[in-house]
Amino acid sequence: MPVTAVEHTPAAADFADRHIGPRGTETARMLATVGYETLDALIDAAVPESIRSGRPLDLPSARSEVEVLAALRTIASKNRVLTQMIGQGYSDTITPAVIRRNVLESPAWYTAYTPYQPEISQGRLEALLNFQTMVTDLTGLDIANASLLDEATAVAEAVALMWRGQRNKAGTVVLDDQLFGQSLAVTLGRAEAIGLPVVVADLSQGLPEVEGDLIGVVVQQVAASGEVRDLAPVIAAAKERGALVTVAADLLALTLLTSPGTLGADVSVGSAQRFGVPLFGGGPHAAFMAVRTGLERMLPGRLVGVSIDADGAAAYRLALQTREQHIRREKATSNICTAQALLAIVASMYAVYHGPDGLRAIAERVHGRSVALADLLRRSGVAVVHESYFDTIRVHVPGKAADVVAAGVRHGVNFWASDADHVQVSFDEVTDPGHVTEAFLAFVEAGVTNVERPGTGGFSWADGGSALPERARRTDAYLTHPVFHLHRSETAMLRYLRKLSDKDLALDRTMIPLGSCTMKLNATVEMEPISWPEFASIHPYAPADQTQGYAELVTQLQDWLAEITGYAAVSVQPNGGSQGEFAGLLAIKAFHEANGEARDICLIPASAHGTNAASAALAGMRVVVVATADDGEIQLDDLRAKLEQHGPSVAAIMITYPSTHGVYEEHVREVCDLVHQAGGQVYIDGANLNALVGLARPGEFGGDVSHLNLHKTFCIPHGGGGPGVGPVAVAAHLAPYLPGDPTPGATTRVAPVSAAPWGSAGILPISWAYVALMGPDGLRTATETAVLAANYLATRLNEHFPVLYTGPAGLVAHECILDIREITKSTGVTAEDVAKRLMDYGFHAPTLSFPVAGTLMIEPTESEDLGELDRFVDALVAIRKEIDAVADGTWPLEDSPLRGAPHTAASVSSDVWQHAYGRQTAAFPVASLRAGKYWPPVRRIDGARGDRNLVCSCPPVEAFAE
Amino acid sequence: MPVTAVEHTPAAADFADRHIGPRGTETARMLATVGYETLDALIDAAVPESIRSGRPLDLPSARSEVEVLAALRTIASKNRVLTQMIGQGYSDTITPAVIRRNVLESPAWYTAYTPYQPEISQGRLEALLNFQTMVTDLTGLDIANASLLDEATAVAEAVALMWRGQRNKAGTVVLDDQLFGQSLAVTLGRAEAIGLPVVVADLSQGLPEVEGDLIGVVVQQVAASGEVRDLAPVIAAAKERGALVTVAADLLALTLLTSPGTLGADVSVGSAQRFGVPLFGGGPHAAFMAVRTGLERMLPGRLVGVSIDADGAAAYRLALQTREQHIRREKATSNICTAQALLAIVASMYAVYHGPDGLRAIAERVHGRSVALADLLRRSGVAVVHESYFDTIRVHVPGKAADVVAAGVRHGVNFWASDADHVQVSFDEVTDPGHVTEAFLAFVEAGVTNVERPGTGGFSWADGGSALPERARRTDAYLTHPVFHLHRSETAMLRYLRKLSDKDLALDRTMIPLGSCTMKLNATVEMEPISWPEFASIHPYAPADQTQGYAELVTQLQDWLAEITGYAAVSVQPNGGSQGEFAGLLAIKAFHEANGEARDICLIPASAHGTNAASAALAGMRVVVVATADDGEIQLDDLRAKLEQHGPSVAAIMITYPSTHGVYEEHVREVCDLVHQAGGQVYIDGANLNALVGLARPGEFGGDVSHLNLHKTFCIPHGGGGPGVGPVAVAAHLAPYLPGDPTPGATTRVAPVSAAPWGSAGILPISWAYVALMGPDGLRTATETAVLAANYLATRLNEHFPVLYTGPAGLVAHECILDIREITKSTGVTAEDVAKRLMDYGFHAPTLSFPVAGTLMIEPTESEDLGELDRFVDALVAIRKEIDAVADGTWPLEDSPLRGAPHTAASVSSDVWQHAYGRQTAAFPVASLRAGKYWPPVRRIDGARGDRNLVCSCPPVEAFAE
Repeated sequence: MPVTAVEHTPAAADFADRHIGPRGTETARMLATVGYETLDALIDAAVPESIRSGRPLDLPSARSEVEVLAALRTIASKNRVLTQMIGQGYSDTITPAVIRRNVLESPAWYTAYTPYQPEISQGRLEALLNFQTMVTDLTGLDIANASLLDEATAVAEAVALMWRGQRNKAGTVVLDDQLFGQSLAVTLGRAEAIGLPVVVADLSQGLPEVEGDLIGVVVQQVAASGEVRDLAPVIAAAKERGALVTVAADLLALTLLTSPGTLGADVSVGSAQRFGVPLFGGGPHAAFMAVRTGLERMLPGRLVGVSIDADGAAAYRLALQTREQHIRREKATSNICTAQALLAIVASMYAVYHGPDGLRAIAERVHGRSVALADLLRRSGVAVVHESYFDTIRVHVPGKAADVVAAGVRHGVNFWASDADHVQVSFDEVTDPGHVTEAFLAFVEAGVTNVERPGTGGFSWADGGSALPERARRTDAYLTHPVFHLHRSETAMLRYLRKLSDKDLALDRTMIPLGSCTMKLNATVEMEPISWPEFASIHPYAPADQTQGYAELVTQLQDWLAEITGYAAVSVQPNGGSQGEFAGLLAIKAFHEANGEARDICLIPASAHGTNAASAALAGMRVVVVATADDGEIQLDDLRAKLEQHGPSVAAIMITYPSTHGVYEEHVREVCDLVHQAGGQVYIDGANLNALVGLARPGEFGGDVSHLNLHKTFCIPHGGGGPGVGPVAVAAHLAPYLPGDPTPGATTRVAPVSAAPWGSAGILPISWAYVALMGPDGLRTATETAVLAANYLATRLNEHFPVLYTGPAGLVAHECILDIREITKSTGVTAEDVAKRLMDYGFHAPTLSFPVAGTLMIEPTESEDLGELDRFVDALVAIRKEIDAVADGTWPLEDSPLRGAPHTAASVSSDVWQHAYGRQTAAFPVASLRAGKYWPPVRRIDGARGDRNLVCSCPPVEAFAE
Repeated sequence: MPVTAVEHTPAAADFADRHIGPRGTETARMLATVGYETLDALIDAAVPESIRSGRPLDLPSARSEVEVLAALRTIASKNRVLTQMIGQGYSDTITPAVIRRNVLESPAWYTAYTPYQPEISQGRLEALLNFQTMVTDLTGLDIANASLLDEATAVAEAVALMWRGQRNKAGTVVLDDQLFGQSLAVTLGRAEAIGLPVVVADLSQGLPEVEGDLIGVVVQQVAASGEVRDLAPVIAAAKERGALVTVAADLLALTLLTSPGTLGADVSVGSAQRFGVPLFGGGPHAAFMAVRTGLERMLPGRLVGVSIDADGAAAYRLALQTREQHIRREKATSNICTAQALLAIVASMYAVYHGPDGLRAIAERVHGRSVALADLLRRSGVAVVHESYFDTIRVHVPGKAADVVAAGVRHGVNFWASDADHVQVSFDEVTDPGHVTEAFLAFVEAGVTNVERPGTGGFSWADGGSALPERARRTDAYLTHPVFHLHRSETAMLRYLRKLSDKDLALDRTMIPLGSCTMKLNATVEMEPISWPEFASIHPYAPADQTQGYAELVTQLQDWLAEITGYAAVSVQPNGGSQGEFAGLLAIKAFHEANGEARDICLIPASAHGTNAASAALAGMRVVVVATADDGEIQLDDLRAKLEQHGPSVAAIMITYPSTHGVYEEHVREVCDLVHQAGGQVYIDGANLNALVGLARPGEFGGDVSHLNLHKTFCIPHGGGGPGVGPVAVAAHLAPYLPGDPTPGATTRVAPVSAAPWGSAGILPISWAYVALMGPDGLRTATETAVLAANYLATRLNEHFPVLYTGPAGLVAHECILDIREITKSTGVTAEDVAKRLMDYGFHAPTLSFPVAGTLMIEPTESEDLGELDRFVDALVAIRKEIDAVADGTWPLEDSPLRGAPHTAASVSSDVWQHAYGRQTAAFPVASLRAGKYWPPVRRIDGARGDRNLVCSCPPVEAFAE
């Protein structure tokens, strides 16, 4: 037959058109408003030639949604799902379907932002308060935060907290050698960076002697070996020596075991993963930290507290927010910004769903099966090492550990070979009687028992009995609050979840114009794969031949991110931007050390985000501030002066590009060159990468290292305050110093920064899908559209609220800052008033007073269409008129809709209304709100009061009665 | 090793505790209120001994959620997903992920009820109005309904409509022999039942001569053979002979082809499946029907119309609701109750998402690939039969059809062998260039081409070109309404879906206490499997060896339902209760005919649901009414008299048990016996089966046939007005007369009643999961708890609103009727006022004025916990106090919160308030509403006005401006 030219119609790879908000005609109108003919012309004017990349993105062409799902199915099929009996801090669990669908898979929950604006975040704040209450109850301590990034960093944070609690005095921290391997590895790395002496000790021998004072001790309640030891002597000894004590605990075990609080702990940390959060190949999972009264103001991370609103109603908010890296900068002992809100919410709802009795029943089942296997093995002549254990039994199989593990795989279960002579078997909610049988058969098959392989019916066992000594058993009650008892039918649970999410504003209802947060579309097709068992049910320490899918996905994603950023290598391990920063600085430090250079100064512009300085401090660097101009641009003269002064000691400079002020600075290459000439390294904070993808590469215009925020530029949803993923990207000379493998037993050159090798592996399919769907052209167009949208808003809003900074050609980058300070001076109306009033218009507030106090920073992203952008402009223009009405005396400021904002439905329908402005003005200031209005559930919240009277667990129900 | 007694801990099969609302302690309190010690005692008192079954349910023991998901995974894996190129009315399609997650998988959409209460249904009414607008636009007709059950029944409904449109005159309907086989089979069965002469003809030969007048003609625009014929001559000839014309059309084809309206059709029908609705193994899918002006009042099914609310705002509602079976009973020409709302909404959103240009692009791609394969085949010496076609090519392969089909399977594609000499290949949105290649290779491999099998690069093709003749091409615009243009980014689409669903009240926010509707939990674990490709992507006519999973699931479910109902055989084919009724009556009719008996009278109690009489009429039976007492119980004397009078002609009696009045009647066995003695069959309507499961079996206490409602008792969600599934269950002697196989080419003894062999196969996993999860004990406890809940409400409410009927021991069954008539007489407050006022309290209204005008019927189901039941009682008690305030003159009725209900947020926050009652009374009559209130988006809607001025497509946007 004749052969003609092949001309296949491409499949419809139109995802970019779905991701990008403005349609073609809308883009044209927006360009006309800004004053450019084409996107290219706008970008040429906005982005300095000096940073532009001449090389287009070398990435696979855009694929359709169907193709990407198919490709991910193929990748997922290369992961093998076995029953995970590995333990070591990761236990399989059953996510109740009603929680999976209505939290993990619900855009109302996962597209929400961090609850910095509490009035529109009452739902997730309540869920996080439930989490805190759950943790304080189970740990027996007084106050818990709203989650940390993972258990390993939580241990490290606890060490830092104890040190600060001891006023940073000279001394040593002792770590239990029975902490999970990853906790030890991460904590040792962190301690080394700040120069805190740490000793790892076998505590069965009592507390070791140490150099200097004993600052603190960290013990693990259920040891990595599975043993439940008597910790009382060690804790008593530590207290006697003036040390603080941290107990790493397992929440499920705590339903049966004496709480850390009762044991005398000052701090307790651990992972909430086994409360319904999938294994996810290592993360994301919520860790927790609880402390006794007196230490609460040192808690890292976020803390939900109770306060009241303007009408006196109980209301939730983040407490003590002006602390840690925000004010302490280089004095900070933590650089954590985000939490694991979405996962903490899942864990809290798991407790709400099961209640104390349900949790205890699960724990008893888990324990019973452990006892059953131990019993079977002992009756078969195999030595089970410990007499007391909860869910993990350690089995002595001299020289045969690998054989037993291999036999386990043949029986569909993964064991943990802690050394050549020992195998550990962990039980969890998922393991059922059949798994006891399979596990036992694996031991038989490996030839370590004294029995022949049993035939059908050849053996049997009964669970029950206890391997928990009387001394270790819990006697006090927990989870007594009604919330853990009222929502136990699926119907009640479903409605509770709906009720909470309805209180909140997320991307599924409105744009979230938060400067520097890049709240873009989290497309469904990107989200769907994370629920697949082949991604969700993988243990981070599963054998490599079972995780080939993850390996492929991670490798490809790292390669793509390297191509996008212009670096040589990327590690996706850091569970947040803060961890990425830390890892990047550690790499720089290690590089200098390897070169025999004693460089420890980190230059940080005055306008930098507080986290930069905090990260530098954690990396053991000294911070030297470089002056910036009013527009945030680094003062080259001051930079030269600082380099002159500190040259041989300069390790690095940390800059953000585009700057935290949202402009493309002209002189970034010059800054980089100057630092390089002085022998320093350049750290470019990737927070604003959404303004660069496809146009410029930090690794090309001067960076040696950057961290990225996959939850910003690469579509991982913010989850109401986490998960975050902060890969670190480095030039070739730094590649050897990327984070090491935290897997227990792994030997690595560099310390890991997270608890799992691939960090939050379970959500990496989201970013992988995004890049695959967009392709190189789509990614570039997204960037260009984001810049266009910001300039469109700046152009339209400038006459109402002056835009503070612009770069080349009077253009902004991907965000713009509205200056409210003159308005405040002349009328008293504050940026906060404007932010809160926007809620009455159905909008999430922009970023408030960052990076400049008294301003609002707006980042529309590429995903908002023109209709939504215009609706936002209309709201701000209307608010400007309201400000004018205050200015001209129509309304007194204190009795204006601005100061009165936000207004609840109850307030505008009250029987008495004695305000200078009308109810309709309060509630329906623009007509479009009549088509469907979001009602803030509370009025403006009194933050200071909440900080003065810190209440961080669920208030009694009566608090909400009228 | 020693062998001990096996004593495995069972896995936690605690689903029943999640499905059933009240906890143990709550059940005890409810029993105490009703006055019984135990559930058993209550049931013994409530349920007549005469109907109780002595035999417990013989069903598998309850399994846990994990076990059931695993079992369904195993079943699903027995279905093989190939690329479906079968066509015949079912085309694969890509459900946009944002629609899948946020409609099909969103409880806010799928747990909603039929929008009979329009004030709390504005979201889904808008979505359905979009559907109607889409259908009228694409068909070029004036008015469309809100969906029908499937295309085959839609054709049958069109025939009935044309007959009625011709005033039921004597004559004949001509059916195109190019209608899909299932449409012909179903329509012939329906026509035969009512005695309407129908002729199937090859219309290429012109219209045939027929007996009597030519009533109507049904032609299929894109023929079953794939051909796009010139229909103008046939339509002109039909019109000339005074006939009405129905065009069966394909919505995707209509983006390219001249519309039925332009062709001169009076009616158009078809399936909206390929607009984003999965194949689902046959259903559920939404069919459509559109008519020209003048026929709209004969449209079967539901019709959404536009009216205004009490404040003059535009508002949607179901129009013309007091028609069809509701008032016409035995004169009805349709017995349809439900629609396919959820699927119609998906289809409408698919159009909203793609817009006219997107749909046209999809159609052009589909067409282009068809042309490409035809071209390849012709160039390879294979005859493609038709010159004009859209998406399906008919290929002449003499004697080789089976070989080609088999080769196709080896290439991963399913073809359709329409006979031994022809294979048809259909393209759709899913088929891509690769499938053109595979399809061609299959023909090559089967040896029907003149080419050797090509090697790599050995052949190629280009799509493009057209096989649509100029005469057939569409030139007019469609989908011009803004709604089809404004929501094209995923962000915009997501927000539109959220905005609409937020307007509605569904089970995810409140109990829906609808008598006779059994709005119980639709558990997530039951819902998840329907999204799996192994269930969703199966063609109903796929080869049997690819559908073994479905076969197993359907067989098991049918067996379980037979065991539960006490019948010998079950068919799940009927796509709704109405179709189940029809099928059951057809079985009775066929049975009598087989016995040579001329029985055609159907006895129907006066209190029966209107559908019963309508179904009898459709089955060609004469209806004779049997008198009922005030309490709905059949008057045995009158029954005896009617049997005396009509004995030898009595085909059946149709009764409902428990009665439509919600009580367990004592004499049902006697009724059955009397009818049996007279030679009649007993039809027991299964609408109220939720009061019987595990306690009594209709097949044991006298029934010969029942239909069930899987969307009531067996947890298929109501979907906002469909899908419904109405299996028919029969005793052994009726088993031969269950519905036949609609698969084209299948030979069956009895006509099918639905378009697919297993009806709505795709949602049967829901009911399968429910039975598997609950087990026999769980099912019985659910029934008992439902009865307890109804009696709890009756007991607590009786002093405020008298309970109209009770059965033995003064107890109700699973629902209770509150009598408002005395209140209306004394105060003017109507049952409707109470129903609408409940919305202000956040509740869905109970069933209004059925079965008795002026009453409210309440069915709480087993899934509501005590907290929700009490909240409902509190609301009704508060409303009773409001009625008292009207009675004592505190408020005039016309200016009372009762008559003013429901109140919108806008109304209670208006600047002017001149009502006798306060704003807080209007909006927050009980304190619990402050924790989160649902706001009706419109006030009470003027129904009569909407019917007078029928507007049934999207109003212009300006209609919503202030």
